[in-house]
Amino acid sequence: MRLSLNQWTTRRWSVAEAVDGCVRHGLEAIGLWRQNVAEQGLAESVKLVRDAGLRVSSLCRGGFLTTSGKAFAEALDDNRRAIDEAAELEAACLVMVVGGLPGVQPGEPLTAGASRDLAGARERVAEALAELAPYAGERGVKLALEPLHPIYCPDRAVLSTLGQALDLALAHPEEQVGVVVDTFHVWWDPRVFDDIARAGRRIASYQVCDYLHPLPEDVLLGRGMMGDGVIDFKPITRAVLDAGYTGDVEVEIFNADIWAADPDEVVATMKARYEDVVLSRP
Amino acid sequence: MRLSLNQWTTRRWSVAEAVDGCVRHGLEAIGLWRQNVAEQGLAESVKLVRDAGLRVSSLCRGGFLTTSGKAFAEALDDNRRAIDEAAELEAACLVMVVGGLPGVQPGEPLTAGASRDLAGARERVAEALAELAPYAGERGVKLALEPLHPIYCPDRAVLSTLGQALDLALAHPEEQVGVVVDTFHVWWDPRVFDDIARAGRRIASYQVCDYLHPLPEDVLLGRGMMGDGVIDFKPITRAVLDAGYTGDVEVEIFNADIWAADPDEVVATMKARYEDVVLSRP
Repeated sequence: MRLSLNQWTTRRWSVAEAVDGCVRHGLEAIGLWRQNVAEQGLAESVKLVRDAGLRVSSLCRGGFLTTSGKAFAEALDDNRRAIDEAAELEAACLVMVVGGLPGVQPGEPLTAGASRDLAGARERVAEALAELAPYAGERGVKLALEPLHPIYCPDRAVLSTLGQALDLALAHPEEQVGVVVDTFHVWWDPRVFDDIARAGRRIASYQVCDYLHPLPEDVLLGRGMMGDGVIDFKPITRAVLDAGYTGDVEVEIFNADIWAADPDEVVATMKARYEDVVLSRP
Repeated sequence: MRLSLNQWTTRRWSVAEAVDGCVRHGLEAIGLWRQNVAEQGLAESVKLVRDAGLRVSSLCRGGFLTTSGKAFAEALDDNRRAIDEAAELEAACLVMVVGGLPGVQPGEPLTAGASRDLAGARERVAEALAELAPYAGERGVKLALEPLHPIYCPDRAVLSTLGQALDLALAHPEEQVGVVVDTFHVWWDPRVFDDIARAGRRIASYQVCDYLHPLPEDVLLGRGMMGDGVIDFKPITRAVLDAGYTGDVEVEIFNADIWAADPDEVVATMKARYEDVVLSRP
């Protein structure tokens, strides 16, 4: 298995700086974010990763597909652009964060326009996927459905378990739609080992970071360096390997302290912790 | 279905005051907490609820059974005392919050003693239940396993889904072990309607409160008055009814603003919201 730096772990680094950082630390893969790629320029980002010989383990992110009407059409258009970008970057997958309840804004107080129709929002995701999967398939891009921890169900993703994401993915060809296993989001799930085995080759991305306790006030930033939280990584890594996953292992950490630290030190710590607490050797 | 006041919704009220409040507002049932019963005195609490003609819809709570050695033996003893109290109160069930990872304290920073053995903690709960269920059965008490929202998995309950709680309960006679359906904890679960149907008569308690967005800094207090959050109650109520549940519907809200408000106003609002957003008539 192969370690990849998701660039938001070293958030202050541009694409160019993160590519340099990967090379400097001997990493062979990088996970990119769309807004950073846009800032760097898509063509230049493509050239940077190719010249450095890096794999793009994922592009983050498509999704936010639970709206309706004009907003839904716009979201589909934006996702088609994300697929095009993933194709240019030859990313192993486009990570899909599907969106929360319509009208519920991430981290913002509820307004009168907030929907409580969770079942409807989930149906909308399935409809969007039926539109987008063939488009992705034609461009050689795999959509990777990411179930998010249930704490994000109101505002970020109505996909809440690996099993639910997998059931959605199975309606499409394997090369078009897979799932993300992110330890932060799935560690608590009593069915996770069964669902990892069931997912098999549908696992499009394996992402690792720890689950901090207690969570900080902004729960989005409750992700920690592996070893700093409550997750026992090795059994999950073992299950992902046993399911047949042969791709990169991306470290994606949203954490104010880590963002404030020297990025080179963060990458060095990441490498050491990956060896110590994540890797599972037979 | 019948509305019950869980006394922590009006937290400043003693057992005597909460019993008076129920009578004053025409409620026929009350959910009690052990520490409040201890403050009032068990015998006096029994007399108060009997004289008022109230049903005790639940006693909160047993559990915290994921430790080992001496602490585990002490926890079993404490749970036997809780069962005895539930028997005296003729409570419809004893709610079981099973405990989190050993060595992880609710709301406190992780220490070197924190366990990451989630599977082991879950096994410990099953072992404890095998000890306690027959004891409860001999005293006519039903243990009600409460799955808690996965956000509480590290520190309060390694039971994270209704399906998982139900699988544990099914190893014991129906009159000894059931499950709690609490809207706050299960609303996000893509399997919840299937698992409510599967639970059938195993549903020992139906508790309602809303899930606030965004959650407050202390996530324990993220419970809101029905209608103030993101939950669509009526389909869940309908499913619980269709599963054959005929018991009380308890409103249990942990919320700093509600605790600061006039308890009589809280109960009045609770009754109105119950009619408006919770009840599902055929």
